[in-house]
Formats: sequence, structure tokens, C-alpha cells
Amino acid sequence: MTRSLVISIDAMGGDHGPAVVVPGVARAAEIQPDGVRFLLHGDQTLVAAEVAKHPRLAGRAEIRHAERVIAMDEKPATAMRRGKGTSMWAAVEAVKAGEALAAVSAGNTGALMAISTLILRMSVDVDRPPLVASWPGSKGVTTVLDVGANVDCDAERLVEFAIMGEAFHRAAHGVARPTVGLINVGVEDVKGHEEVRQAHAILRSGRFDLDYRGFVEGDCLSKNAVDVAVTDGFTGNIMLKAAEGTARYVSSELRMALTGSLPAKLGALLARRRLLQFRARMNPPRAAPLLGLNGVVVKCHGGAADHDFADAIRMATDLAQSDFAVEIERNMRQLTAAVAESSPAVVDGAA
Amino acid sequence: MTRSLVISIDAMGGDHGPAVVVPGVARAAEIQPDGVRFLLHGDQTLVAAEVAKHPRLAGRAEIRHAERVIAMDEKPATAMRRGKGTSMWAAVEAVKAGEALAAVSAGNTGALMAISTLILRMSVDVDRPPLVASWPGSKGVTTVLDVGANVDCDAERLVEFAIMGEAFHRAAHGVARPTVGLINVGVEDVKGHEEVRQAHAILRSGRFDLDYRGFVEGDCLSKNAVDVAVTDGFTGNIMLKAAEGTARYVSSELRMALTGSLPAKLGALLARRRLLQFRARMNPPRAAPLLGLNGVVVKCHGGAADHDFADAIRMATDLAQSDFAVEIERNMRQLTAAVAESSPAVVDGAA
Repeated sequence: MTRSLVISIDAMGGDHGPAVVVPGVARAAEIQPDGVRFLLHGDQTLVAAEVAKHPRLAGRAEIRHAERVIAMDEKPATAMRRGKGTSMWAAVEAVKAGEALAAVSAGNTGALMAISTLILRMSVDVDRPPLVASWPGSKGVTTVLDVGANVDCDAERLVEFAIMGEAFHRAAHGVARPTVGLINVGVEDVKGHEEVRQAHAILRSGRFDLDYRGFVEGDCLSKNAVDVAVTDGFTGNIMLKAAEGTARYVSSELRMALTGSLPAKLGALLARRRLLQFRARMNPPRAAPLLGLNGVVVKCHGGAADHDFADAIRMATDLAQSDFAVEIERNMRQLTAAVAESSPAVVDGAA
Repeated sequence: MTRSLVISIDAMGGDHGPAVVVPGVARAAEIQPDGVRFLLHGDQTLVAAEVAKHPRLAGRAEIRHAERVIAMDEKPATAMRRGKGTSMWAAVEAVKAGEALAAVSAGNTGALMAISTLILRMSVDVDRPPLVASWPGSKGVTTVLDVGANVDCDAERLVEFAIMGEAFHRAAHGVARPTVGLINVGVEDVKGHEEVRQAHAILRSGRFDLDYRGFVEGDCLSKNAVDVAVTDGFTGNIMLKAAEGTARYVSSELRMALTGSLPAKLGALLARRRLLQFRARMNPPRAAPLLGLNGVVVKCHGGAADHDFADAIRMATDLAQSDFAVEIERNMRQLTAAVAESSPAVVDGAA
């Protein structure tokens, strides 16, 4: 296998293990050019049995036996201490060793984050990779980060999220110049707390190679008013879950309304095709990158279906083949310079 | 007029002024017992013309002429400096003077907050009244605060919101013992930032006469998992707007789905009654109290209809007739004692 096109797969991860992961890899193989190949880490017998069902994988997938699997409820600290020899660990280690350009896992998120950080190390000054969400809206998808990994964020960290999110959005969605916004309680410069006003001052300094549009409010997300929306992991997590809860509530009320009477039931039956399309539009992509690592790692949702896993592989391939790491590094150098040069000026600028 | 049952009304507030406010008062007069009377502040001629259309108001409404009106886009600082003589100012001043037990306005929110704080003063150690939202969900409504007034909140402030929100929820919704939760990124004691962990430690100390249930996550709101959910004004504002944006997006996608094809249109027509009920359930109450003042002030949405204004009057009456101020004061004394006694212990408890 040549180095440039290998994707390393945790074949045992997720709620269904190889039974979903391997068909997902097969779908990806169908879509991706022949040059992309796969390293499948997991139980030799189980994985081989699944691979045998997919002729498309012949010659494009190599199985690497891994004795153990990280449980979906394993604590991240335990996963770090005792993860060696698991399929997840081996999948990430193949990136570190240069055997693969990216790793994909549908396993335990906390464990994947901990193991990836331990093996690959952070390339930026963040404790752990920000969690990235894809927010569905009227014009497509907004990349939102951090939705839960870093609860306390100072201004520099928010700027780092902006830099990483922007490069990710370009690589993953093919948008040449993604617009970036900072989530706040209003759009005027004086709004919000000190951290967000400082980050605003740094971002609008013009030092960075990104299209910063200023503050955006919470209702801008579903309008996709910007491509990338940045916030701290506390606000981001709560905002995402509140919105998910609202979407679920609205959908369930709707279901009740459409099954609550005979005419309504009949109506729902007539509108069925459109209602299914509506549901599909509401489901966001189920893959997310772990950003800021020295290497590409993509997390797929644990309950994902095979086509979701194929999407995660496509995201990993897009990231691995892009310049996104170089772009991040270039903007990060600007941030370091900005902070070193003019901390007082930055604070003044925010006032 | 006897003191105990007078509600002071800003008759000029809101997008439509007396044309909506006075019919709203008339609806309230219909529902409320005869003992409740109204002081209507505004342009004598305009207000009298509206009052004349509603025989129910005869003998129950007294008009107080006010020369000026605060514009919907007036800055709060200007409203404070030059607000004297406006209908809003006079409505709040009647509470201060003891002529009325509560004031209701559909005018400019920032101005109402500034004028109310100036005239009535805060009874608690908060800069300004927290904004209160009523979050619709599967079991009714959750009172959420602060959704935007106080962007920076330490642990004590969060506890104050819990105390005020709990007393408000009981008075406004007739729930004998509302449950209270603190919004966080997870439910374990170690989750979140220092302020939220400290507030959690203070609230679970058992000092307070309230049913504290611990941390809740963002998706608990639409489930009405607690009656009162507390957060800082930064997170609260963003979370509320993100959820509102999501609800609007889902509804508009749904509308498109139900009008996108002939069978779908026919289906929507058949399900029409249920769909209208669904929409009504999604609309939250359009009235909110300004909490923490020495007196009751209720804000009604600027674009509200007359029945919304009647709801706001009912909220004002319920609050004015309840013990909620006394209950708040009692719990606030416990908070002062807790902080004075044991700041280090509180910090230890949070660790």
C-alpha cells in the first residue's frame, strides 16, 4: 500500500461493530477512487467474514488483527491506560506510524479523544480537540465548535477554534472561503463577556487569512448565516442539546398532530413522501473530525448506519488530501505573533 | 380604588399601543374578579376612545394622562434620563407610590428594565432583573432564566436566579413545589466550570426551601424535566435563540413538505385542525416578569395580541396576590448566611 491513500479503520467500533463498519467501508470503496485503500483493525475472524461478503473490498482492504475492543462505556482515563492492543488504539497508531493518512472510528468518543491526543499529541495549545457539530439549516450546514470538549475558553482558544473550524469547513465541504462568526448575545462590539470581545478584537485585526464576519446570535445557526460558528464548549454543548431537544419535541408534536385523527392520518399518508424528505433534511451528518491533532482522526456516531460510516470515510479522505493542516499552522503562527506583540492593544481593542 | 387590587398599565406600549392594550385589559376584566381594577397610563384622548368601546371597563379603569411615549427603539440610557412623563414611567411609578400592586407594559424591554430598576430598585444583589423565558415542552412549560440580562454570573448570582425563578414559577403556574435544576454540560458533580459547580454546592446544601434536583442538560428543557432551569445570561440567551431558530427552521421545512406536492397539499388540508393545534402548542406565553425588583413588573411581548396582554395581566395579578416576594426574601437570607459562613467550605464542596 502506498502511504498517500491509506485510511485506517477501527473495524470493531460503534454499536454494531464490523457488521456495520465493513459494509460502510465497502460503500466508501465504491465511491472513492481505486487509489484509496483501507487498513481494518479488529478481530481477524469476525472482520474477515464481513469482508468476504463484499467483493469490492478485494485487494483494497487489509485486516490487522487486534485482540481487544474498547467498550462504549469505558472511561477515557481507563482507555488511555489499558487501550494498547485494542482496535481503536491500533487504528490511531497507524496514523502516527505513517502507515495511514487518517483514522476513522465509530467507537467511544471520550476514549477516541483521549487515545488520539495521547498518541498523536495536539498540534495547537488546546487541552483536547474541540467537538465539532454540523448544524443543519436552510442553506446547508454550519460547522459549530466547540460543542463540549473545552468548557473554559479564553480569547486565544476561541480564535484557535475559528482557525481550525475554517480550515476544516473548506476541506470537508469544498467551500473556497468559508465565513466565520463568533457566537454572542448581540452583534454590537460591546456585547458579551470579556473573552468573546477579546477574541472578536483579535479576529478582526486582519492578520488572519480568513473571512471573519463578526458576532452572530444563536438564531443564525439554522439560517446558516455563517459557515463556521465559534463558541466555548460550555455554551456550545448546552445550545446544541437545547436545539436537538427542541427539534425532537417539534417532530414528536408533529407526529401526534398527524396521527391524532382519521383525516389527519389520511393527510399524513398523502404527504408521506414529502414528510420523509423533511425528516432526512433534519438529520445532520453523523461524522465529526477531532481537530488540532498531528494527524487526521474522524469520529463517526456510534449508532450510525453503513452509509454514515462511508460519509465519515469520505470526510477523512477529504481532510487527508487537503492542505488543511498547513492552513491551520499558518494562521496559528499569526495568532502567536498577535498575542506576543500586543496583549495590551488587544485588550484595548476589545473595550 | 383600593390598593390591593389595582394593576397599573402602560396603555401606549407595544407595536400597536392602546388599540391592542385596551382590548387586552378588557379581556382581563372579563376573566378577573370584579375586585381587580386598572390604572391606564397614556394619551387621554386615544385611550378614552378605546375604553369607550368596552363597556366591561366602565367603573374598573381609570385613565391617567401621560404626554409622552417611549419609542420601541429608544436606548435604555436615554429612557432613564428622559423617561419621566411617559406612559411607561408613570405605570411603574404608580407601583412605587403604592397606588398599584403591579405594572404591565408591552413597550421597549430595555427601557422597561432600566426604568423599573431606577424607580423600584433591585431587592437582590443583581445588576438588573434576569430575563425569564417560558420554554414550551411535552409536559407544559419550564421557567428558564437568565436568558440575556446578566452576561457574567458568579455562583451566588446563579443561586439568586434559582430562588427567584422558583418563587415565580409557583406564583405564576400554581405548582406547589417547583423542581429546580442548574443547566450544565453533564449531570455529574465534576462537570462544568467553577461557577456552576459552586452554585451546585450551595444549592444542594439543604439550606434553602426549594426542591433542587441538581444539574440538567440542554435537552431537558423541551422535556420539562424540571420546572425551573437556571443558567447565566450568556448561555441562556444563545441557547434560547438557537432553539427558537431550530423551531422556526423545522416549522418552515414542514410547511414546505406539506405544500410541495398536490397529495401533500391535500394531506395538509385534511390534517389542518391538528396542525393548527400543533402550532398553538409551540407558541410560548408572551409575558415575562422582571424579577428581583421591589415591586411586580410584567413585560408583555411588543407584538402581542390582546389575549396575550390579558395573560400578562393575569401573571401580574397572580404575582401581586402571592407570597412570592416574601419567599424570595427568606431564601435570600439563607444565601447571605451561607456565603458569610463558609466560603471555603462551599469551594471545597464543589471540588
